[in-house]
This record gives sequence, structure tokens and C-alpha cells, in this order.
Amino acid sequence: MNKPEPHAAFATPSVTTGAIPGSHKVYSSGCAHADLRVPFREVALHPTANEPPVTLYDSSGPYTDSLAATDIERGLGRTREAWVRARGDVEEIAGRAVEAADNGFVSAEKLTPPFPKQPRVLRAKPGKTVTQLAYARAGIITPEMEYVAIRENMRRDAAGIRDGESFGAEIPDIVTPEFVRSEIARGRAIIPANINHGEVEPMIIGRNFLVKINANIGNSAVTSSMAEEVEKMVWAIRWGADTVMDLSTGRNIHNIRDWIIRNAPVPIGTVPIYQALEKVGGVAEDLTWEIYRDTLIEQAEQGVDYFTVHAGVRLPFIPLTATRVTGIVSRGGSIMAKWCLAHHKESFLYEHFEDICEIMAAYDVSFSLGDGLRPGSIADANDAAQFAELETLGELTKIAWKHNVQTMIEGPGHVPMHKIKANMDKQLKACGEAPFYTLGPLTTDVAPGYDHITSAIGAAMIGWFGTAMLCYVTPKEHLGLPDAKDVKDGVIAYKIAAHAADLAKGHPGARAWDDALSRARFEFRWEDQFNLGLDPDTARQFHDETLPKEAHKTAHFCSMCGPKFCSMKISQEVRDAARQQNDVAAGMAEMSRKFRDGGGEIDVAVKD
Amino acid sequence: MNKPEPHAAFATPSVTTGAIPGSHKVYSSGCAHADLRVPFREVALHPTANEPPVTLYDSSGPYTDSLAATDIERGLGRTREAWVRARGDVEEIAGRAVEAADNGFVSAEKLTPPFPKQPRVLRAKPGKTVTQLAYARAGIITPEMEYVAIRENMRRDAAGIRDGESFGAEIPDIVTPEFVRSEIARGRAIIPANINHGEVEPMIIGRNFLVKINANIGNSAVTSSMAEEVEKMVWAIRWGADTVMDLSTGRNIHNIRDWIIRNAPVPIGTVPIYQALEKVGGVAEDLTWEIYRDTLIEQAEQGVDYFTVHAGVRLPFIPLTATRVTGIVSRGGSIMAKWCLAHHKESFLYEHFEDICEIMAAYDVSFSLGDGLRPGSIADANDAAQFAELETLGELTKIAWKHNVQTMIEGPGHVPMHKIKANMDKQLKACGEAPFYTLGPLTTDVAPGYDHITSAIGAAMIGWFGTAMLCYVTPKEHLGLPDAKDVKDGVIAYKIAAHAADLAKGHPGARAWDDALSRARFEFRWEDQFNLGLDPDTARQFHDETLPKEAHKTAHFCSMCGPKFCSMKISQEVRDAARQQNDVAAGMAEMSRKFRDGGGEIDVAVKD
Repeated sequence: MNKPEPHAAFATPSVTTGAIPGSHKVYSSGCAHADLRVPFREVALHPTANEPPVTLYDSSGPYTDSLAATDIERGLGRTREAWVRARGDVEEIAGRAVEAADNGFVSAEKLTPPFPKQPRVLRAKPGKTVTQLAYARAGIITPEMEYVAIRENMRRDAAGIRDGESFGAEIPDIVTPEFVRSEIARGRAIIPANINHGEVEPMIIGRNFLVKINANIGNSAVTSSMAEEVEKMVWAIRWGADTVMDLSTGRNIHNIRDWIIRNAPVPIGTVPIYQALEKVGGVAEDLTWEIYRDTLIEQAEQGVDYFTVHAGVRLPFIPLTATRVTGIVSRGGSIMAKWCLAHHKESFLYEHFEDICEIMAAYDVSFSLGDGLRPGSIADANDAAQFAELETLGELTKIAWKHNVQTMIEGPGHVPMHKIKANMDKQLKACGEAPFYTLGPLTTDVAPGYDHITSAIGAAMIGWFGTAMLCYVTPKEHLGLPDAKDVKDGVIAYKIAAHAADLAKGHPGARAWDDALSRARFEFRWEDQFNLGLDPDTARQFHDETLPKEAHKTAHFCSMCGPKFCSMKISQEVRDAARQQNDVAAGMAEMSRKFRDGGGEIDVAVKD
Repeated sequence: MNKPEPHAAFATPSVTTGAIPGSHKVYSSGCAHADLRVPFREVALHPTANEPPVTLYDSSGPYTDSLAATDIERGLGRTREAWVRARGDVEEIAGRAVEAADNGFVSAEKLTPPFPKQPRVLRAKPGKTVTQLAYARAGIITPEMEYVAIRENMRRDAAGIRDGESFGAEIPDIVTPEFVRSEIARGRAIIPANINHGEVEPMIIGRNFLVKINANIGNSAVTSSMAEEVEKMVWAIRWGADTVMDLSTGRNIHNIRDWIIRNAPVPIGTVPIYQALEKVGGVAEDLTWEIYRDTLIEQAEQGVDYFTVHAGVRLPFIPLTATRVTGIVSRGGSIMAKWCLAHHKESFLYEHFEDICEIMAAYDVSFSLGDGLRPGSIADANDAAQFAELETLGELTKIAWKHNVQTMIEGPGHVPMHKIKANMDKQLKACGEAPFYTLGPLTTDVAPGYDHITSAIGAAMIGWFGTAMLCYVTPKEHLGLPDAKDVKDGVIAYKIAAHAADLAKGHPGARAWDDALSRARFEFRWEDQFNLGLDPDTARQFHDETLPKEAHKTAHFCSMCGPKFCSMKISQEVRDAARQQNDVAAGMAEMSRKFRDGGGEIDVAVKD
């Protein structure tokens, strides 16, 4: 792994590259679209394993491909641009000129330089609808759809172990491109992929697919630079983030975003109201529909794949937050609440919702309908304000679908365990199974500094119940801006939650991974155990702290129990003894069968 | 906080002392037993809060009392010894002499010195039963019972918010000593408190009380010393461990245990088979009932409060593990399996179970009936071996109860989310509601290095469903022996799981803590937010990384969002604006009422 050098504030970012230890990148090609190159992480096992390599889902992009050359100043390859252009329904436009306001009126010497090579801006031709939803409804299987179908199967050609409780999800044994199309057509899944994001490796978000996770990055007025943010994006996807939201709020927002998107193989989401607010000097009351609209176009032309839009924060709902313990805790929600009250008017996001849909449809930007009234504390969970907004998000979903705009719905927040399922059930009902995208939820408020854990608990549960994407929470939540370590800690905690959810749902591709790792563990293939883990570096480092020698990598014990007390070692000896003494495993199986048939009451003497 | 100096291998341990930042120790006295001094952690809030101090449960002992002097060479005060003696049913005995085998035949120069001042050994007088279970059945409310009643109430005199799903738990608004007695009498709760552990601050484990957590410490043949282990115990309870298991397996076991118990205000658990195995040079086949029996007496006389006994690993169950992915992963379970197969005989723990009960009853050592066949991988969860053993543990529970021995039951292990509830339900049914004490469970196998998180998810859920105590898992699980950082990370993750479970169960004392912290958060009382947290040190450090100045401790923002984008700040401005513009909160409440009455369909114009 090549760690980036420390860099000056506005230096060209140098990012972490190199294969995940013990893994290498492999690609599958398409069938209907032969030029697809769908990436996977392949973990080869020790020869003694006598097992084929394990294929894992891989969102890390070319940065982990030891054969790929990446150059941040040039950006990633734009393979997908050809697919978009080939459909013949987009046109090049001049695009909106960058204004001083876009970068927060930053002074020339503090300006983050623009990304060197600007791609031509694409937009739907007049009268054309270029969203994956429109294609799906028209019965068209796009290269993006075939790509995600291949990706979801992880090179399986049959179902693995199907053992779970799916709560009504309908996960197929094998994902076909047609299944992807049908799920998108009915609004149950989205492929967030702006036609201007030619660098993206398509991925799908929906309850009948693998559970995804999002990592938030972004500078704030208080700290951090462009170079740090690009590295944070690369770092977040290295460990498994499926999408990245750029929540920057300081200066240089436009240019930083450009650098991020041109180097991002994952969909990038934003909250456009943040930049709009910067344009009016931070005074929420001064926001206008025109400034917001202009910001949407600005970001859509850059290639942002999904927008969080807090159009459900309606004027009549704001009083419902008056008796809350923590009021309104969504930044976008509080900005819109302030605007509504200051003007005594309904939210311009709500009133102009159809106008927003039209803009987003022209670039295939997906909605992430923001939950501006999500609870910020256990006390406020599932209250009238939260659920009133959710009903509104359901209405808005239908409007977005009418405009062929792909849509997902954001969810809480802080919710105690016993109130989590009600959120999922209400969302499915109110929003017609549009994908749910939840922040945590945090299951208690009492652990500042550990909210990646308080929320991983809730995230795993709501993922199991049907949430399609989990927005990570880092250990710095409520306390400060996350650094690289926090980003990694948050991503790993959420990869755990997402995979635990896949397992519990009975996803047919989930169990093979756990079983491969557990076999490695039982057989003391230490390197395989490390390499199959979510974070091989940390697993290896933890092991080596007490047993650093190479010889210990094949030892039949670790420092936890020592050689005499290793249960796995003893258990293997037990098996060996049984094989020798009795008639190998057959005899044990027979004993086992008799015991089961006898209702567990066979006499001990039978064994002799 | 006074951190211990680095020390030589067998130096007198120096341990971490000093108050938890922002907290101080307070004590409540008893009613029926006036000399009780029940400890709590009290967090005083900033004067602007206009709120009384918050009282938290506190298992950390005198080490966090800035007014208490502790001296590891003298051990803690033995207040409880007077309660035990006052009952008139115990007698002093000479006690078993320490043998060379007890410390693993360690050479003189490597011998950990014995604890300096050995208390007199107590045992039940012939014909007397000295267990809390026997007293409870006889209708006697002991000082221990009143102590835990006061402790569980956390200085509440009425129920707090009762909002949860308890799955049949019957948690009272206020815990009375009589309720404690009745729960113990019916076997639904235990107070693990050996009559020889005069230093213990009694605590209760049962599904109708606060969910507790256990931390494992202990050296292994590979690493660590007595001084480290004593400090680990003090460190684990500082962060909230309710009991500590000493799982030492190397040399010096007897003497290290002595130092730990004499300085432990929490119950200490052990797995006696580990020491028995050391006595026979690590050869499982050489174990005998006589050696095991002698070890039980040795440890009971030292004051161990609960013994893990793997008596459910019966010979006929062993073949059921033959086709498992990870065989037998309990150390005790694998040792007994090896013994059974080597001798073609039923386990001596099972055959001598009534003899074991008699020994334990004489000192009031509680059973922790070990789940020697717990699954060690997702693949093996809820299989025939696991559940066959659980049924046997149910039989054994009834035998233990017949002998008036307090009993809890150990549980898995590795279990995917959708199979967790079945474990709880089966345990309640098979074991007559005896307290369940589970390890995790880990909800996926794929994250070595992060199993405190994979398991905190499962622990929170099974705690919600009814598990009474959660055995922590550290980040080093499967990889090596935990160090101080790992112990703390494990304890905090499990305090989160336990409290999330209390909240979800609707424990009447749980919510006040979250609400107090959330109010502090909303009102930018940063110091209060840190101090109310599970780990004030880390919360403060995370905040200060980006905003170190004292002035920022009252700032209405943090570096996460910066001053312009702080939703809580804006939300407060929204409230202030609403108060000024309209008729204060009453108006907002009225608007809110109208909205609700009108089914959410009131017109926006109503607001003007």
C-alpha cells in the first residue's frame, strides 16, 4: 500500500494506491455488452486449503489494481461516457460558467485550482429522458444494468446457502440484467449515475440487492483541504464505501467537488442547499429558488450522481418539533425550517418540486429525499414530525417517478432498537418500496466518541429489515470532522453492519465469505484468515503484536489462549482421534444420526 | 487519572485510580441494613442546565473515589465479611494448603509472590446452606439483596419513561429488596458472591434488572504478568465491567488469582478446568474428577464468585460436531470432548454434577453453566450440537436449584441476526428463566480485528430479547491476547450494547441518561456532553483535536459542520424566532395540535 505523502493545503492530491494485501483485482466481461469490465476483489487461498479463490464485491476502483496507473491530475478513465453517448439522446452543451460564488468568493491566492481537463457537459436532448428509470420502463437493458447484474453475482453462477429471514424482500438466486431492469422500473432500486459522471463504475441500491454503504466526506469552514478530501474519498472506497457524499461547506466547494468526481469510481452525492447557502453568505433567509436552481444545474453538470433534497420539511411540520429534546438536527432541514419561518411561506423545495424533477431528469441525477426532521436523540424517535415528513416523502416519490427520476428516501437518525422496524415498515408503505437510505440509526445517545458502534447496531438491524443503503457514522460524530482513521473506522463498522444484514436476509451470495474465513480460521491458515477479512492490515497487525514471527503464521495457536488451550487445535485432535479409533467420520455421523433419531436420549453405552 | 507506571514482570501492581472526569462518587445507605454504602457515579451539570446531577450505575469500586485510599498490597476493605459472619451459619476452616501444582510448578525465581495478608477461609457449617438462593427461598432479605435493590434504582424514587418492548420481562418501576428476593428465589436472578469474597460490592444478574457485562482478563502461556492482570481488572471495571472473569492459563495461576480477588469489588468468575489441566501438564486425558474437585475447593476458598462448568458437553453430543465448519471452539468444551473420547466415557463433570453442587453450595459459588458446544462460526449456529447441550443445561439447572446453588447459563457465540431470538427463547424455556449470559454473539465472521463490533450488534439484540449479562469480545478476538486498549474498547462496546438493550426493553431507569446527554448536546454544554458519556476522555479528546481552545467548550458549533451549518444552532434560532414572532411555544404547540387533529392536512395559510 502506498500511503500519500503529507502535502500542502492545495497541492495536487496524492492518494493511497496498491492492492488490498492478499487480494488482487479481477474483471468480468459482459454478455449483451461485451466491453464491460466489472471489477472484483479476488482472494487466493493457501494451497493446503484445496479451495478455489474467493471473490468479493469491490468498490475501490482502479486504485487497488496493481496493474492500473492512476493519475489524479488526469482523472479516471471515462469508459461510461461512450455508453451514454451511444444512446443518442444526449447533447453537448456549453455548460454554466463557473462563478466566484461557486467557490465561496474565495480570494485568488486561496483558490483551489480547477481540475485541469474539463470534460464536455452532456444534457438530455429536448424531449428525451435519459434516466435509467425511463430506460427500464421502456424495456431497455442498459450497459449499466448489465454491469450491476454481473457485479451483484460476484462471479457466482448458482445460489449459495439461502438461510435467512428477508421480511418480504425478493432476492433472486442469481441477478439477471432483466431483474435489474424490472426492479428499477418499479422504483424499487436505483443506479445513481449522472450522464456526466463518465468515470463511474455503476452500482445498484435496492432491497433485493446487496446492502450498500455510504461514506460522508467534505471539508467544513473550520478545517481540511481539497487534497485531504480527494484522499478521503479514495481511502473510503478502499475499505468498502459504495457511494461517497461530499458534504463540503467551506470555500472552494465547486473546485474540490470537481477533483473528487473526476477521480471517483463510485457515485457521488451532495446536498445542494449547502452550496446555495454559501452563495448567500450563510444567511438562510436570503436563499431563493433561483439560487438553488442554479446550484442544482451547476452540480448536475459536474456529474453529481444524487442530490439530497429536503423537500419534505414543510412549514406546517416545523411546529411539531417545538417540544423535541434536540429540535431539528439535519443541517438541510434546519436551514429550510429557518427559511420557512422567516418568510412564513411553504418551502420552495416543496413548491418547486416538479421543477427540480425536470432538472434532475435531464442529467439522470437521482433523488435522495432528505429526512430533514429525523430525530437527533432517542427521545425524539418516531415522533409526529418525523412521520409527517415521511408521508410527504412518499407523495414526493410518486411525483419524482412521474418525471422518471430515480429516487431513494433518507431515514433516521437516533432510534432505540424497539422502534427501528416501525421506520422500515412505514417507509416501505409510504414510499412504495423506493430504496431506504438510513443514517445509522444510533441506538443510544450516551456514547460520544463511539457512535460508529451505537449506530452499527441500528444499521445492521434496519439493513436486515430492508434498508438498501446505510450511511456511515464515524467515531467523531457530534464531536468534530473525521480524519482518515475515523473514515476507515466508520466504513469498516458499516461494512460489518451491511454484511450482517445480507447474511440475516439470506442473500444467496453472502454466506460463502463467512464460511471461507471460518474454514481458514479452523485450519490455522492465518494468512488466509487475514486476507479474507474486511481489513487484512489490522488483523495481521493485531496478530503480530504478540506473535510476530513468520513461523507463527502457520502455528496451531495464537497468544489469546496459547498452544495448550487452543480449542480449535484440540477440536481437530478430537476429530483425528475419532477417525482413528472409530470408523472415520462415517462412524461419527452414524452416532450423530442415532442420537437425533432417538430424540437425544440414546444411552452412553451405545458409544463404546 | 493516575496511570500506572510501567512495571517489572512481578512487581506489585500499580493501578489506575482517580475519578472519571466530571464525575464523583456518591453513596446511598440502606434501610433495613443501615450500614450499606452503595456506590454511584454522579455527574454534576453546568449551572445553566438548571438540572439536578445525573446518577449513573457504577461498578468501578473505590478506585474512582478520589477520597478513598487504595493499597493493592493490602487489598480492598472486607465490609461484606461482617454480613456473612453475622448470619451465624459459616465457620472458619484451616483451608487447603497451596501446592506447587496450583501455580503450575513454577520455579522459585519466577513465582508470583503470594498475596501478603490471607483472610481466614470460611465455609458453611455442616448442615447449613449459605447461598443467596437458600436465603431467598427461606424468605430472608440479606444485606446483599437490599444492596443490589438500591443499586439498581440508581437513586430514582419513581419510574422514568417506560417505553419499550420487553419480550415478557417483568421489570418493576422500582426495585424493592423483596423483589430481589423473589427473583432470586425463583432462580430468575443471581447475586454471585462467594462468602470468601468479603471485598465484593454485590450486584445482580437477571432479565428483570439492568443488563450487565463481563470482561475477560487473564494471562496465557505466551504472555502477560500478574501486575498487568490486576491492572486490567481495575481498568475493565473503571469503564464499566460488572464482573470480571480471570481466564489465566499459564503459570502462577493461583497467586495471580489471589491478587485479583483481594482487590476486586466485582464478582470474579473462572473456568476451573483450565487450572485443573495445568495440574496434569496440559494432557486432557489425564484429568480426573479428584483433581478437578480439588481445584474447585482451592478456588472456592479463595473467593471466586462463579465457576464456568462445561457439564453439558456429554459424550453423545460430540459426534454432532463432526460436520461443523469450526468444530468445538470453547476451550473447556474441547478439553472435555477430548477427555470423553479418550476414555470412551461420559464427562466426569456431568457424572459428578451433584458433587459439584455440594461444593459450590458450601461457599455460595454460582454456576455459569458453560456452553462448550457453542458455535464458532455463522455456519454452525443453532445446530443440533448446540441445542442438545442447551437442553442438558436445562436439566442441570434444575439439579443445581435443588442444591440451592445459584445458576446462570452461558450462550453463543457466532450467530447471524435472524437466529439470535431462537437462542433466547430456547434458553428461557429449557432453563426455566435462569439468567442467560452470552458471548456476543458475533453476527458475521468476516471482520477479524473488529469483533467487538460484529458482536456488539448481536449482544445488543440478545440483551434486548432477555439476556441478563453480556460477555464482552475485544478487537483482538481470534488474533491475540487483548491489551489495555483492547479491554477498554471491548468494555465500551458492550456498555453500549447493554444500555441499548435496557432502552429497548423499556427499563424505567434507562432513558434519563440519554435524555440528559441529548439536552446537553442541544444546548452546547460541551463539558456536560463529555462528562455524561461512557468515556469522557475520548469524547473530549476527539472534540479538542480540531477545536482545542477552552472558548470552544461553549461554542455553538463544532468542526464537524462549522458555525454556519450547525443544525442544532439553527434549530435553536428557529425556536427563538418562533417564540418572538408568534405567541411563544404555546402557539407552536397549538399549530402542532391543529395539524394532528386535522390528519396532517391543515392548510399552510393557517400558519400566517
